[in-house]
Formats: sequence, structure tokens, C-alpha cells
Amino acid sequence: MPRELQNEDALLRKIADSSRSSRSKTPWRSVSLGIGDDAALFQPKPGHQTILTCDWFLEGTHFLPDKHPPDSVGWKCLARAVSDVAAMGGTPRCFLLSLALPEANTGRWLGAFLAGLRRASRKFQCPLAGGDTTRRDEILINVTVVGEVLAGSAVLRSGARPGDILYVTGRLGEAELGLQIVRRGKGAVEKNNPFTRKHLYPEPRLALGQWLVKKGLATAMMDLSDGLSSDLSRLCAASVVGALLEKTKIPQVQIPDAALKQGHDPLQIALHGGDDYELLFTVPPRNAKLLPKTFRGVGLTAMGRITRNRKLLVLDERGRAMQLHPRGWDPFRKKL
Amino acid sequence: MPRELQNEDALLRKIADSSRSSRSKTPWRSVSLGIGDDAALFQPKPGHQTILTCDWFLEGTHFLPDKHPPDSVGWKCLARAVSDVAAMGGTPRCFLLSLALPEANTGRWLGAFLAGLRRASRKFQCPLAGGDTTRRDEILINVTVVGEVLAGSAVLRSGARPGDILYVTGRLGEAELGLQIVRRGKGAVEKNNPFTRKHLYPEPRLALGQWLVKKGLATAMMDLSDGLSSDLSRLCAASVVGALLEKTKIPQVQIPDAALKQGHDPLQIALHGGDDYELLFTVPPRNAKLLPKTFRGVGLTAMGRITRNRKLLVLDERGRAMQLHPRGWDPFRKKL
Repeated sequence: MPRELQNEDALLRKIADSSRSSRSKTPWRSVSLGIGDDAALFQPKPGHQTILTCDWFLEGTHFLPDKHPPDSVGWKCLARAVSDVAAMGGTPRCFLLSLALPEANTGRWLGAFLAGLRRASRKFQCPLAGGDTTRRDEILINVTVVGEVLAGSAVLRSGARPGDILYVTGRLGEAELGLQIVRRGKGAVEKNNPFTRKHLYPEPRLALGQWLVKKGLATAMMDLSDGLSSDLSRLCAASVVGALLEKTKIPQVQIPDAALKQGHDPLQIALHGGDDYELLFTVPPRNAKLLPKTFRGVGLTAMGRITRNRKLLVLDERGRAMQLHPRGWDPFRKKL
Repeated sequence: MPRELQNEDALLRKIADSSRSSRSKTPWRSVSLGIGDDAALFQPKPGHQTILTCDWFLEGTHFLPDKHPPDSVGWKCLARAVSDVAAMGGTPRCFLLSLALPEANTGRWLGAFLAGLRRASRKFQCPLAGGDTTRRDEILINVTVVGEVLAGSAVLRSGARPGDILYVTGRLGEAELGLQIVRRGKGAVEKNNPFTRKHLYPEPRLALGQWLVKKGLATAMMDLSDGLSSDLSRLCAASVVGALLEKTKIPQVQIPDAALKQGHDPLQIALHGGDDYELLFTVPPRNAKLLPKTFRGVGLTAMGRITRNRKLLVLDERGRAMQLHPRGWDPFRKKL
């Protein structure tokens, strides 16, 4: 059984060893100097811009240590930061891990956490380049991901124009339903349930983001982390536009009958549920015919359009427009 | 009086506004896209490698909210990560700020914190490029600094060779003495005391690190953050060498008589005290004559040499060698 670690250098070695075993698989040429010095050295690709993003992943705020398996914590802390790189149409290159741990978590928990992190690191071809560790009463994680994109070709939030068609990948609200199942569950989490799986092991839409950049099809893009209502409102604010969603076209989570009986409303979950890490993007009408219905097994759905009027509206079956207010996840908003 | 902020977007705006007012002073051309999108875009300089480093700065672990003024927290969280860039001989280009705050700290405290951060950002010519915010019961900070260095010229920890002379900047132990004064103090911290100032507002040795790289003088370098005994042990391990320090040549903190009476031992503080952010570096004997006694007002002291024998030894006035064990700051070591 893994023992608890006695000092910071031992913790760093354990993390470095875990990262090395994943580095043998792929030629990670972007990282010239990894763990063990004052800083890491990264070799930028000529003609590219570097994408920089960081994300908190904190016990109690972003995950529950008694509910979320440690390998999911490891996978997800990297996946959600990588999703920001996908949202620019970029390619992840490496990441930094800041980890603060109680001593009791430096044994078995850390081993499983690092295994999940290593799986994600391999999947996204994004090796660990460095980080910082310390002791703390609670598990605190911060991940910085470094990516690259051909200079000038990143898709920003600010490029949407009136008339553009609003697309989204996948089905919205699945991760939120998964969270509710995880919260209610007793004992071990059922990892094979598609909703809990989406909540625990999200898959950033890297290939689609890169394809949209390569083809020059999208005018604006972002990933959905806090929920459609909040994130669409940010995209529209950055582009100084509004949006009109068609209620019947929003790709909602398909809730099993049992869960429907518990009062879940799929539209509300799709509009305001967080953690889906799907891509929200806008495409000029002339480009829309070039988009497939699915891309590598993930559905692409046109669910509305960008408007000059700066409101966010949802049009129902009978043609009535209701205003959509940002009601996704906001850690600073008072609890309802 | 500043009011507490009601949501995350308002917090982001406050941080972005503070950062904008510091950006007008210098042409920050490295940052192509700053706060407000999924990620930041950085324009690397041709022929350069990118330096990546991140650092925790946590309430209770790295600062005491009732003792440390918020503008010092802002200054120091950036300065200590920038010091890692100095330790490679690089130039800071931009940083990411991850900030978790209690709601009560989003008013006056945040304003003073951002003022200290802005001062440091200007001084180090290192603008804010992005970050992440969330609400939390305690103040949690993580800073990622991105720097650059001419490809292949960074000075690593691993380059020291037997016979190299071991240098250090400044006087060791001043920040530790400053911390002890801050801890004991009642009421407002005396910011004009040179020891508390060094503890609260450390100055990374950027210019010296860059000069050593430009002249090609140093074989190995690192910054002293956890204390000489711990950090020298890391440099020697990375270079697979040992070191022999001469006790009388170690540039110790000059302790005022009053503090000496309280039992402070300047040698012990110099050997094991943390947070100095001075540079420790090694120079082949043939290069030593090219080093000035001071560089921009900071003393450079030869205090020993690198040995093939992998021990760390301190030689006293009478020529007796005592072994030096790493006893600097380690958050994972049990409290003594």
C-alpha cells in the first residue's frame, strides 16, 4: 500500500516519475526542459502564437472528495483547461500542475489522481512540464495549459456578426444531470452511466476546434463551462451582439423516465447546467452548408442565430420570444 | 468606500481595469490577446525559448492576512514567480493570475492587493494576460509567469562542475528576520524597516541573471526561496556534485544588537531562512575575475566552491568541516 510522503522533494519525485512514464509514448518536443529546475523551457513552433489558460479545481468548490473518484479529479482538472485551448481552435502542448495536499492524500489518493491525470495527458498529447506543490488542509489544484495555434487564426469570442448561425456540439445538460446523479449516489460512483461519465471525464472538442480553424469556417467560438445562458451571454457581450435561440432546436439532455419523474426539466438543465465542455460557435450562413451533421461522432446542431438587437431570446414552439438571463454557475452569486 | 462585488464577471472586470491602467505605460507587445476570452494569446519572440513557472501563494501557508498588508501580498505573489525567470537568466513577458477570495475581500482588500500587483507588474514589465477567479473561504493565489530567453542560453541548476566558484547575491537571512519582526509586531507593519521591506517586497535579481546569460559567465543558477541549505542541496543534486562553503564568507544578515539579544543566530538564519529571492550561481575560476564586487548596488559574494565529493560542507574559522543538512522551508516536513 502506498505510504504517505515525508517531504516536498519526495512529492515532486512521485509526480515527475508518473509524468515520465507517460512521456515515453509520444515525442514531446515542445518541452525542452521539464520538472526539476526553477522553471520549464518551452520551444515555440515558428509562425504560431502561444495559448495560455489556467483553471482552479478546488475541493468543495469544483469537486467533492467523498463523491468524486481521485482519477476523475486528475482527468478533469486537465480536461477543463485543455477545453479552453479547444475553444480557440488550438493544440495543447504542455501543462503546469499546482497541487496543495493534506498529508493523508499523498499516498493512495495521489496515486489514483496521477493515474487519471496521466490518462488525460496522453489522450490530449499534453505532457506535464512543471508545477508547484505544498501542504494544505484541503485539496487545491490549479492547472495552466499552454497551447499553440497558427498566428492570427485563433477563433475568439468577439467575432460573431448579426446573421451568423449559432452552433453547439453534443447535448447540453448531460454533465449537470451526471452531477446530480453523483451527488445523490451512495457508495461508489457508477462510472458506466453516460451522464456521470460525461460529468467525471469530459472530452474537450479539440479535433473539431482545430478543423474549424483550418477551414476558416467559424467567426466566434467558446467552450461551455458555466452553462449556455451564462456563456452565450459572454460571447454576445464580447461580440456586441444578441442571439435568438429556437427552443425546439436546443440539443437537450435526454433524461431517462425515472429522472423525469423526479422533476428534472431538460430545457432548464440544458440552458443553465454547467461543465459540458461542448463548443459554442458561430458560422456565417454561406459557410453553414460546409458543416457536417456530426464530426467524429459528435453532433453539430444549429440552434439559433446572432442578432443586432443585443438581447438573448428563446423562441418557443408558438413563436413567442422569452428573454434568457444568465443563470449558469457563478461562484460569486449568492445561493438561491 | 469600495463595495463588495456581486458576481464573477464584476470581479474579472475589476481585475482587468486595474491591469489596463498599468498597460498604458509600456508597449506590451508580447500579449496579443489579454483578459476576456477563453485563453490569452502570446506572441513568442523568434529565436527564443519560453520560460514557464507557477507558484502558490496561500493564506496561512505563505502569508498571514492579519499581518501582511494586501499590497505586499499583491507584490510578492508576482515577485516570487518572476524570481524563477530571473534564475534562468530570462526576461518576464506576462503572467496569469488565479485568485480565490472570500466575498468580504472583494472590496478594500482587493483594491490594495491589485495596487501592489500593479506596481510589481510595472516594475518587472510583466503585464497580466489572463487568469481564473472563484469564491472561497480563504484567500488562495496562484501565479503563472511566462518569460523568454535566447534559445539554448538559459542557465540551469544542472551545470555546476567541480572547481566552480559558488556565488550569491545580497545578504542571506534578511527576509527571515523580516518575517520574525512581522510575526511579533502588533498593529501596522513598519514598512520602512529594511528587513520587513525585504520580506514584504522582494526584488527578483532580473538584471543580474540576464547579464550573466549575456556574458556566458555562469554554469549553474537558481533562486533562493526555501533557504540556502535546502536550495544549495537541490542545485548540487541536479549537477551531481557537492559544495564546500566557507563560514566566514557567507554574507549573513547583519542583525541589530537588540535582535541579537533575543537569541537570533545570524549564521543559522542565513543558512536556513527562506524567502530571500537572491541568486545562487556557479562560475568557473577563469570567469571569476570578470565578476564585479557589486552589480547595480547588489553585492556578489564568492562563498565557497563546488566539489566532486557530493557532500555539503561548511568550513569554520579553524578549518574544521561540518556537514550541512537541508533545513530550509519544506511545507511537507513535520513541524519541529
